[in-house]
Amino acid sequence: MNQKPLVISAPEPRTLQLIFSTEERHTFESTYEVIEMPAVEVDSIEDGLAKRVRYVVGQPALGEETLSRMAQLKGIFNVESNLINNMPYDELFSRGIYVLTTGGVFSKPVAEMGLAMALCLARDVIDADVAFREGTERWGGDGNVEARLLSGSKIGIIGFGDLGRALAQLLSGFRAEVSAFDPWLPPSILEDCGVMPMTLEDIMQTSDTVFVVASVTADNVGFLNASLFSTMKPGAALVLLSRADVVNFDDLMQFVADEKIVVASDVFPDEPLAKHHPVRQLKGFIRSAHRAGALNVAFKQMGRMVLEDMTLMDQGLPPLRCKRAERETVGRMRSAPVTHN
Amino acid sequence: MNQKPLVISAPEPRTLQLIFSTEERHTFESTYEVIEMPAVEVDSIEDGLAKRVRYVVGQPALGEETLSRMAQLKGIFNVESNLINNMPYDELFSRGIYVLTTGGVFSKPVAEMGLAMALCLARDVIDADVAFREGTERWGGDGNVEARLLSGSKIGIIGFGDLGRALAQLLSGFRAEVSAFDPWLPPSILEDCGVMPMTLEDIMQTSDTVFVVASVTADNVGFLNASLFSTMKPGAALVLLSRADVVNFDDLMQFVADEKIVVASDVFPDEPLAKHHPVRQLKGFIRSAHRAGALNVAFKQMGRMVLEDMTLMDQGLPPLRCKRAERETVGRMRSAPVTHN
Amino acid sequence: MNQKPLVISAPEPRTLQLIFSTEERHTFESTYEVIEMPAVEVDSIEDGLAKRVRYVVGQPALGEETLSRMAQLKGIFNVESNLINNMPYDELFSRGIYVLTTGGVFSKPVAEMGLAMALCLARDVIDADVAFREGTERWGGDGNVEARLLSGSKIGIIGFGDLGRALAQLLSGFRAEVSAFDPWLPPSILEDCGVMPMTLEDIMQTSDTVFVVASVTADNVGFLNASLFSTMKPGAALVLLSRADVVNFDDLMQFVADEKIVVASDVFPDEPLAKHHPVRQLKGFIRSAHRAGALNVAFKQMGRMVLEDMTLMDQGLPPLRCKRAERETVGRMRSAPVTHN
Amino acid sequence: MNQKPLVISAPEPRTLQLIFSTEERHTFESTYEVIEMPAVEVDSIEDGLAKRVRYVVGQPALGEETLSRMAQLKGIFNVESNLINNMPYDELFSRGIYVLTTGGVFSKPVAEMGLAMALCLARDVIDADVAFREGTERWGGDGNVEARLLSGSKIGIIGFGDLGRALAQLLSGFRAEVSAFDPWLPPSILEDCGVMPMTLEDIMQTSDTVFVVASVTADNVGFLNASLFSTMKPGAALVLLSRADVVNFDDLMQFVADEKIVVASDVFPDEPLAKHHPVRQLKGFIRSAHRAGALNVAFKQMGRMVLEDMTLMDQGLPPLRCKRAERETVGRMRSAPVTHN
Repeated sequence: MNQKPLVISAPEPRTLQLIFSTEERHTFESTYEVIEMPAVEVDSIEDGLAKRVRYVVGQPALGEETLSRMAQLKGIFNVESNLINNMPYDELFSRGIYVLTTGGVFSKPVAEMGLAMALCLARDVIDADVAFREGTERWGGDGNVEARLLSGSKIGIIGFGDLGRALAQLLSGFRAEVSAFDPWLPPSILEDCGVMPMTLEDIMQTSDTVFVVASVTADNVGFLNASLFSTMKPGAALVLLSRADVVNFDDLMQFVADEKIVVASDVFPDEPLAKHHPVRQLKGFIRSAHRAGALNVAFKQMGRMVLEDMTLMDQGLPPLRCKRAERETVGRMRSAPVTHN
Repeated sequence: MNQKPLVISAPEPRTLQLIFSTEERHTFESTYEVIEMPAVEVDSIEDGLAKRVRYVVGQPALGEETLSRMAQLKGIFNVESNLINNMPYDELFSRGIYVLTTGGVFSKPVAEMGLAMALCLARDVIDADVAFREGTERWGGDGNVEARLLSGSKIGIIGFGDLGRALAQLLSGFRAEVSAFDPWLPPSILEDCGVMPMTLEDIMQTSDTVFVVASVTADNVGFLNASLFSTMKPGAALVLLSRADVVNFDDLMQFVADEKIVVASDVFPDEPLAKHHPVRQLKGFIRSAHRAGALNVAFKQMGRMVLEDMTLMDQGLPPLRCKRAERETVGRMRSAPVTHN
Repeated sequence: MNQKPLVISAPEPRTLQLIFSTEERHTFESTYEVIEMPAVEVDSIEDGLAKRVRYVVGQPALGEETLSRMAQLKGIFNVESNLINNMPYDELFSRGIYVLTTGGVFSKPVAEMGLAMALCLARDVIDADVAFREGTERWGGDGNVEARLLSGSKIGIIGFGDLGRALAQLLSGFRAEVSAFDPWLPPSILEDCGVMPMTLEDIMQTSDTVFVVASVTADNVGFLNASLFSTMKPGAALVLLSRADVVNFDDLMQFVADEKIVVASDVFPDEPLAKHHPVRQLKGFIRSAHRAGALNVAFKQMGRMVLEDMTLMDQGLPPLRCKRAERETVGRMRSAPVTHN
Repeated sequence: MNQKPLVISAPEPRTLQLIFSTEERHTFESTYEVIEMPAVEVDSIEDGLAKRVRYVVGQPALGEETLSRMAQLKGIFNVESNLINNMPYDELFSRGIYVLTTGGVFSKPVAEMGLAMALCLARDVIDADVAFREGTERWGGDGNVEARLLSGSKIGIIGFGDLGRALAQLLSGFRAEVSAFDPWLPPSILEDCGVMPMTLEDIMQTSDTVFVVASVTADNVGFLNASLFSTMKPGAALVLLSRADVVNFDDLMQFVADEKIVVASDVFPDEPLAKHHPVRQLKGFIRSAHRAGALNVAFKQMGRMVLEDMTLMDQGLPPLRCKRAERETVGRMRSAPVTHN
């Protein structure tokens, strides 16, 4: 009998409905035998199923013993951006089982939000609208004393993964001087992407606008702090899009309060944030409640990525659409798991 | 003796200080003999000066008699975007005296502001920040119910002069489907600029975002009205950047109030606007107080444009940097003169 | 009766069949009353027709008297790239009658040929194929001793009209450093087009490849000569695409013969060229018999340009698709008229 | 003592001098202890060295026993484009030892050569120059009967690895409709690169120009044959840049001989090719003796790639610059090893 390949689905807090369009979910379910189960139950999956599993969707805890029972397992699609330390990665790498993340789907939405924020900082769009509501708007040039253009300006990108590349792509119409810093990438890759490789220090000192899109790792918690902020140009803008942990948030707020720089951020030290956190009233700071990536179109793209890579792997080819966990870095990624879509 | 060419300067409400950088003003004043006078006095300029005038900077009223006394006049740089009906244009065209506008300097600043507004509409950036200040923000996907991307969307541009082109250039990084309508341009020029020529009706019906950048003319007052707004996609965005007179503003507000479309505008039927005008409290409407273009860098670029074209004309070449008034359209341009920079 | 506007057609050596597609010719002939006549007869056109003529297609000799009889004449579409001194241009400019050239249609074909030639010079494509035919080819790296890339190299463009822009557009995928020199253009227009303004001397000294696309004028015959060639980098390439008269052709051949530079040219001092002209056997020189522009698709585009501008002018708008003769430069253009399509 | 990491260098037929610039070779040799040895001797390397080897440069045969003695081995930089079946890949993958190829260095040079050839086919550049030497050239439009533009045409790319991407990048200035077929890639990656995913059959039927840049694998020998050539548009062009084995070369020549298509190729069934092979005299066929990639700048880039990835790996990061051998495909790549640079 011609059995369909078996997929165990445990993508909490995502759901199959969230990540698949109707049509793609139909393709998924007609191509594979899909068994949905709570993530906590995957590790005690019965032997009859275990030995048939080809793919896991989700990031359930998996013990070495369970893994050894899954003799045909080819890939774990965790449908997140991060990697939890809840499975024996060494074993997975050694057996050539791919652990695949789908964070790339957020790069376009986050890049567009980042550009929106940078333009709002450069042109004071938000406070000007609020003033207009209140009848205190300033007309024409009077309202533009500190306004500036992104076109032709110096823009720095810290971290140059999918999101940094999406930003560079969006910025291509501005004819700006775009530089990037990424310690995990060779300089020639930055050059191939049309951005100038630069040290962190030089980016902070020379940029009119800095986009922070670096993942948080074991090594870089709080690496953006007062000593770097103090080197920024007066009035320069910083747009924080990755994780709050990469900056010293108190330092950041202080520099805004002192009117040395302006800032926009999609991420905060606690999410949700305390009702009376001082950043809520901080002038010169634009706030977004971790909304930059979580668009419906992005979630739906996850399903497409999963299907495309399963299709390749079903043909004996390596997956290319999702991002693979790497032996060297799997232990370094420190984003908290998502608890909320 | 080797006299410098004479320039009469009457650029009110602009000033030479506004439009020139220090260095370029120095070049200007060392190349030309510059006589500044109030605009109202130019028409009664004395004969000895009149016969020596090569260029006029500004847009003073000029009678036929005065013009006939200015036998060496080559060009009038009006350092505005519009043309006032205060000189005998037929005579100027017949004599080959150029009337040159410098509105092109505003195209980049206005395009960046337009993109900022379009992104704010697509992602609800402003109300989300205001809610965050008030502690009522919604986190993650909960705050994104109506959020959408510009990337890959359908974008329509109404009017395709300098500003429309600047917008198309900025949008080039978004891989969107950009269409344009401009009744004064042949379709093949739109194609050469990488946008799709489309009828006004089709743009209104198919676009996710419409940028209105058409100049107001004798023929198009209020041409964007309820009957066109009613054909727009539910939730589509309209960004008005040129002049309020091209839309029926009451219709526009009604469609926003009815939550059929969302709108951002830099221009209003009266400027400044009455303190209790209903648009001030209209939800789904982003307001900017005619600030999109009036950046210091834009004014300074005017001086550079004037110098570049004077340099060409001094060599017996035609001016190419500023925009020339055209016989056919000079009478049709209806923007009010600027009274405020 | 509702008479169609009258067009006199005398486009020798072009024909209406050459410049119009079947469909566009149909549109042309159903919109206008088209009277074809030999160019030499236009000047003695009978009064009844003369007073009704709205447009002339072609570049027939026109006397002042004839012109005064053509009271409704709006435009002369010469369907060439050049302007013959056979009509009273002052009178035409004063009356606001446009003289329109269609040379822009050749810019894409010529730019593609220019790029083909530059790549052939950089990679020795032609001689390598000829050697292969003869069995003397060199394999792999042995055949590439002098090969180089355009990607990332320094490219200079001399003359930056339609053709220079088309070249810059084609080169945009190469991430090269593109500079341009054009004495008739202000530097900021070059910058807006994404190329770096540079002096002629600097372009000659610094470029790996120089494209010569400057029109020949009263002032620039032979301006590219030994003294400039001697400043070029060893082995640099020069691609001549406009007119042979802008270079000192003997000097050019000498520098190739001395193996100092390599050259490709589409144009020659005499066309057709003498059977024993030494350039025919010159190694390091690629020859093309004025074929770069004369593609059928280019000729057909002329008809579209003419129709688009007539449509604008019929609506009382200025023509924008064709290039207008300018008072200042009409007397300077020195290309010989075409005698051959 | 602080010993430098050990590198075994056996890159035959490449040499360290070929792949490194002077400066980068200096960096290489001062960072690592480099021991050069003939490839055939690596497998019998003495224990004292074996246990210290961090990297191997070259592609020497390596037995399981040797590999087990190289306990610290992290990567094998084969400085080629292909993978020889001369080491136990399973063992390497299981241990997480990277096998890294540097074929990406050839993508820009090959893409430029491919574009040169496509333009030469479209405009008959080579035969026109040969005719000019012989005094039989045809002038202007007479020489362009079959000439066509790449701008705006339909272009298909078969195989979309580094080389396909480099081609798409070069073609970006042409505003052509570029499609691609690659059975090893998900369609959304093609879309992200700005090309349209298409079946092989559709590409062959609809393209004006087809670039063949697919690697030869166990599955695709001769997959481009008469049955596909017969579906091509009359006069369409095919440019073969990867390996001759992917086409049925006899079929290809027959279609050219019958004047159904035109072809350019950098690769041949035998290299060097027999002196009297019929392709040498075949009209409508441009020949290049495997010269497209073998540029000095490309070889030098290999050294830079190797150094960049060693630098990452020395820091405990995964290599990103070179291309990694993949478990699934390592056995499928069938290019013959290079014997000649």
